[in-house]
Amino acid sequence: MKLLTFERDGVPGAGLLDGNEIVVCETGAAARLAVRRIAEGDAELLDAWKTKAANGAERLSRSEVTILAPLPETRRDIFCVGKNYREHASEFHNSGFDSGGKQAIPVAPVIFTKSLSAIIGPGATIEAGLDRTRTVDYEGELGVVIGKRAFGVTKADAMDYVFGYVVINDVTSRELQRHHSQWVIGKGIDTFAPMGPVLVTADEVPDVTKLTVTTTVNGETRQKASVAGLIFDIPTLIETMTATMTLLPGDIIATGTPAGVGIGFDPPRYLADGDRVAVTIDGLGTLENPVRQ
Amino acid sequence: MKLLTFERDGVPGAGLLDGNEIVVCETGAAARLAVRRIAEGDAELLDAWKTKAANGAERLSRSEVTILAPLPETRRDIFCVGKNYREHASEFHNSGFDSGGKQAIPVAPVIFTKSLSAIIGPGATIEAGLDRTRTVDYEGELGVVIGKRAFGVTKADAMDYVFGYVVINDVTSRELQRHHSQWVIGKGIDTFAPMGPVLVTADEVPDVTKLTVTTTVNGETRQKASVAGLIFDIPTLIETMTATMTLLPGDIIATGTPAGVGIGFDPPRYLADGDRVAVTIDGLGTLENPVRQ
Repeated sequence: MKLLTFERDGVPGAGLLDGNEIVVCETGAAARLAVRRIAEGDAELLDAWKTKAANGAERLSRSEVTILAPLPETRRDIFCVGKNYREHASEFHNSGFDSGGKQAIPVAPVIFTKSLSAIIGPGATIEAGLDRTRTVDYEGELGVVIGKRAFGVTKADAMDYVFGYVVINDVTSRELQRHHSQWVIGKGIDTFAPMGPVLVTADEVPDVTKLTVTTTVNGETRQKASVAGLIFDIPTLIETMTATMTLLPGDIIATGTPAGVGIGFDPPRYLADGDRVAVTIDGLGTLENPVRQ
Repeated sequence: MKLLTFERDGVPGAGLLDGNEIVVCETGAAARLAVRRIAEGDAELLDAWKTKAANGAERLSRSEVTILAPLPETRRDIFCVGKNYREHASEFHNSGFDSGGKQAIPVAPVIFTKSLSAIIGPGATIEAGLDRTRTVDYEGELGVVIGKRAFGVTKADAMDYVFGYVVINDVTSRELQRHHSQWVIGKGIDTFAPMGPVLVTADEVPDVTKLTVTTTVNGETRQKASVAGLIFDIPTLIETMTATMTLLPGDIIATGTPAGVGIGFDPPRYLADGDRVAVTIDGLGTLENPVRQ
């Protein structure tokens, strides 16, 4: 299933994406958190949705609604993985902006968080003007949503804890990322966490390593890589994190970005006013956002 | 006021600390989040508490209850500030464990987060055994709780956004902190975020810079410093963070730890099985926790 959260005439709604149609399963204030409740394990709600969908629920076209992030209000900040594709780790390390360790290729997963107050949906504006250093960069990423409380999970069992997947753009101020050494400020700027359009349940993704992450800016391809290229794959990330720390249902792990970010170019190609940045992952959809300086 | 959350015979409760007595203002499942609701701005609930307290609410001694963290379930992960006292920044930088920047004294606030799933209350056990590297260290800190949605706040206005203060121990695995380069894993281990015993409202702390943070291990003083020694003071932290990122009511900022942590000694003095670590801040109380290896 492809779960989504939306607004229609200012009223929250939630439901399923079926081809290009939206199957409306819930409307009103509670709908804003409905996908989160399902991701967190509310099986009754999911069953109710399935029943509605099978019994002639209202259908809307995408143009009739504003699609929000599928999880517009998360339980906590978004976990992110730094330097998790080999070529990106090198381009970032060589850029001079890396305060994330002495080695280009990390010896262990580099985990940081991205502020939940930065989350926006597809089509919403990335307010690059908030970064006065004017070094705003894109990072297309696959996001993993955890479905069950997880502690001490082995690699062999890790995929059982994955509820689903979502496209994320880990928008970053490179100067603030470097200036503050730890990355919360450079990564947590309001509107710098575009996510969506849908949360796709794990059963629709039989082999996540076969997915490709593609990022374009104004139609020009900048990033294109297979998820198979992750240095620390999803089972390894879950095993490593839950070795010491409990992950909660609804937690998100943005798994890292491949090569081709703006600072990989010489001179760097930062996002500018009027740009449109789009991250596409097969089966998960396209997350496109305009940029305002 | 001194707000607290507790359990009595397994039932959640919340109320006020009056001297050594607990004034019971709420019991039942909802009580667990009552202090959070007040910190987030629920003025009606606070008024109801005041009325109850003035009209003969039940009073308990501290020994009749288990005091929990005042905010046992936060809205998101805890913001923390690294290297924010001069002598500590030097001792940490010289210890060889610093992956937080090239300079001993940071040029800008070093902000990271600590997992909310690590929160425990006073008296609860720090499960040092979860860190197989056996490099568990204490960091006594003043925590600031934000009371209003905050964006673009100037230093001059910053203190208006502070709801109150709490004692925090930013327990850390030094090897994991270094190994993973960004600090989420080394800082986020389950039980590594002791907090409490009370959340003290800002009106009871006329000058926060006059407070002293003291940490003892088995009664031996290890850290003792005035909050006046912060490199980036509370108004600066709030101004810096809200320059680009919205802080939410109920957010916590642990402001940094002074000199005297275990890795400041040669050889390092890590926490060991059976140790008792206690962080005291005048007026906010003592947060004592046993350590189990």
